[in-house]
Amino acid sequence: MGETFVVVGGDAAGMSAASKARREDPDLEIVVFEKGEWVSYAACGMPYYVKGEVESLDDLVQVTPEAFRTERDIDLRTDHEVVGIDPEARTVTVSTDDLLFEQAYDKLLVATGARAIEPPFAGMDLEGVFTVHDMDEAGAIEAYVSEANPETAAIVGGGYVGIEMAEALAGRGLDVKLFEMLPHVLQPFGESVATVVEAHLQEQGVDLHLDTPVEGFGGEGTVTSVDLESESVPVDIVIVGVGVEPNVELAADAGIQIGETGAIATDEFGRTNYETVFAAGDCAEATNVVTGEADHVPLALTANRAGRAIGQTVTGTPTEVGGIAGTAIVKAFDLGAARTGLIDETRARDAGFDPISVEITESTRAHYYPGAEELTVTLVADRESGRVLGGSVVGREGAKRIDTVATALHSGLTVTEVEGLDLAYAPPFSPVWDPILTAARVLAGKFEDPA
Amino acid sequence: MGETFVVVGGDAAGMSAASKARREDPDLEIVVFEKGEWVSYAACGMPYYVKGEVESLDDLVQVTPEAFRTERDIDLRTDHEVVGIDPEARTVTVSTDDLLFEQAYDKLLVATGARAIEPPFAGMDLEGVFTVHDMDEAGAIEAYVSEANPETAAIVGGGYVGIEMAEALAGRGLDVKLFEMLPHVLQPFGESVATVVEAHLQEQGVDLHLDTPVEGFGGEGTVTSVDLESESVPVDIVIVGVGVEPNVELAADAGIQIGETGAIATDEFGRTNYETVFAAGDCAEATNVVTGEADHVPLALTANRAGRAIGQTVTGTPTEVGGIAGTAIVKAFDLGAARTGLIDETRARDAGFDPISVEITESTRAHYYPGAEELTVTLVADRESGRVLGGSVVGREGAKRIDTVATALHSGLTVTEVEGLDLAYAPPFSPVWDPILTAARVLAGKFEDPA
Repeated sequence: MGETFVVVGGDAAGMSAASKARREDPDLEIVVFEKGEWVSYAACGMPYYVKGEVESLDDLVQVTPEAFRTERDIDLRTDHEVVGIDPEARTVTVSTDDLLFEQAYDKLLVATGARAIEPPFAGMDLEGVFTVHDMDEAGAIEAYVSEANPETAAIVGGGYVGIEMAEALAGRGLDVKLFEMLPHVLQPFGESVATVVEAHLQEQGVDLHLDTPVEGFGGEGTVTSVDLESESVPVDIVIVGVGVEPNVELAADAGIQIGETGAIATDEFGRTNYETVFAAGDCAEATNVVTGEADHVPLALTANRAGRAIGQTVTGTPTEVGGIAGTAIVKAFDLGAARTGLIDETRARDAGFDPISVEITESTRAHYYPGAEELTVTLVADRESGRVLGGSVVGREGAKRIDTVATALHSGLTVTEVEGLDLAYAPPFSPVWDPILTAARVLAGKFEDPA
Repeated sequence: MGETFVVVGGDAAGMSAASKARREDPDLEIVVFEKGEWVSYAACGMPYYVKGEVESLDDLVQVTPEAFRTERDIDLRTDHEVVGIDPEARTVTVSTDDLLFEQAYDKLLVATGARAIEPPFAGMDLEGVFTVHDMDEAGAIEAYVSEANPETAAIVGGGYVGIEMAEALAGRGLDVKLFEMLPHVLQPFGESVATVVEAHLQEQGVDLHLDTPVEGFGGEGTVTSVDLESESVPVDIVIVGVGVEPNVELAADAGIQIGETGAIATDEFGRTNYETVFAAGDCAEATNVVTGEADHVPLALTANRAGRAIGQTVTGTPTEVGGIAGTAIVKAFDLGAARTGLIDETRARDAGFDPISVEITESTRAHYYPGAEELTVTLVADRESGRVLGGSVVGREGAKRIDTVATALHSGLTVTEVEGLDLAYAPPFSPVWDPILTAARVLAGKFEDPA
């Protein structure tokens, strides 16, 4: 009799693993339990559905449940929640509306994802107050905007989700107020990106409140205000986007080890402390290629890649899940902002580096070529080794240039080596010295002249 | 008494070297001889001047002769042609309209650039027949288009210059016919790019004649036809862009060694076979980072970078000029096309590799996100080592993604390592798997399965 591969969670990591395992081994029994209805969906596309640029939530589904079942021969069970794991007995306990049953496995993948943090604000349960993490929530926000016709929106939190939802709701014609408790939006992108994004948000009419903790929401049944320490601001809809946290309770209860980041600890193959139990995606740690240490950056590519690797490993070809550089990119109205690696000085010092950094602003095309925009680039390196540790870019075009820095991080290139890269130049695409090269050149100069 | 640094040629390499040397050593005597009037100009911008997108040729000048003289204290002499070098005596012979004199040097930089190849066609001297390499030629073409009101243009040669001039003249309202003797345009970009560009040129109304050698041009005083083997095609203006060749005669006559590529041979510091004579820019070879061998790819960034390094070396800080990956990018109407490294199978085999390659077409953004375009990517690797050797991309957006491949080439990454890069993803900027990653993933699959 063949082996059974059980997957808990039917999104990016889980379905990538199941699909890859099927391609590698036509005889493997593959069972996926998903507690909701949606599988294999592009959560990152939800703001654009709310904005009205994506017509239907179904457009965000990469592969339908039917296709997984019929074309890929995967026993996909939606509305099935795994409520327990027994790693010694190699079984999971599964709950549905009517049933509670056990399923045996030979190999198990925990791909339970992450959830939006629900802060302990008063009024979180008022109608018109939403978090954004799954497709049902995105559908509910869109419906509320269409049906309740809110005029003023409050976004609580200036991370990716907050910024993307600000753009989405402004695009729907709402007046948008954004509340961030920290001094800057997009904290992981660094201050250099944040200041450019903040100025742009204001240009776009977003009423920006930095350093402004929210205490709760007021209203009777339906939200009508955001309550701050000193005042109460009238609003018609609230989006709370203050971050995500990994869904690790199921794993922790089973004795699966949780790492220092709060996500599930894994080895280079995505394996947990149990030989037959793997974890991948937003619930799991990954190795940061700059620090060599465990990190938790819940993003789609990491989930896809780790899932795929585990699909190979469980079918007999041990495959490393690979490291992450912490690369991220976000659209903020007409701007693109991106980051990779270590850009925070304190974090770099904690990782044992002596950071030195530079910020430059360069044209995205030859200065004389029509449509050239400004790109602000930061680059951080280690003073002793010269190794590039991270960087960020922000501008109206060219944010994908961060990929050059990310590639340099994977290769451990020094500032001088980045300065020497033969990047593509023609007037419509870049100045002779690409902005990344200029940043490296200026940073290299700082090494020569420590003054 | 201080040393004297003499530079022959006042464009990218020469002026970069002179400027860097001045910053490093305020006391050095720096003399630059330029045989023409223009210095430090962006030749790559000329097609956009002809097209009308750049208002004045002066906009293409990075730094004026006056600024070099007054602000940088460089003894820049335009309309001064160096007609001889005596490396033993360390002198150059200089000619002007009125004078012939000798100038002594301690260090010499030969930065004589390249020139447009003038093929031995009948009628090359007819009015209305132009090559495109310097600013005076660009000015003459623009003036002819404005004043003679040609209606039909022939472009001879489907390289960068031909394609860019096709776009420029079509932009001025001319009917454009393009003649290429080879089976494809943009030969160094490979067939995959060429077929996409060719289809686009035709969509844009360019009358494309591949596999079509030109024999000459007809007309009495002024050009009126392009003569092919079998027919004579009426035209009002002709642009000949069949490539460039390095200006090495001055160096060769002085006993400076010319490499196998036909350009001046140099070591890692840009030094020629004479201890005190350097060469840089379009007249000089550079080391290809993939093959480790001498190569000649006359492009602006290489010239700038080598000039800068030599400016440091001659002032006491030996600095390598750095390798090249042969990265290039070109705009063809609404397309961007780019290439890097070794993509030609024969060339890869000649360099000792066993090439294996892949071509994929992927979306530039999430498939559901508005404005997504197709990007065709090729990636070439060595079958034995897995090392990436080169690649190309072509599409309506995203051509700068070639920089990721170029960075991988400098680092010697394998296909599996490229597949594992943590590149930036968000729906407006990329699919979850960036097209470069998808190409690497598919190519890695070909290694596993040699069938």
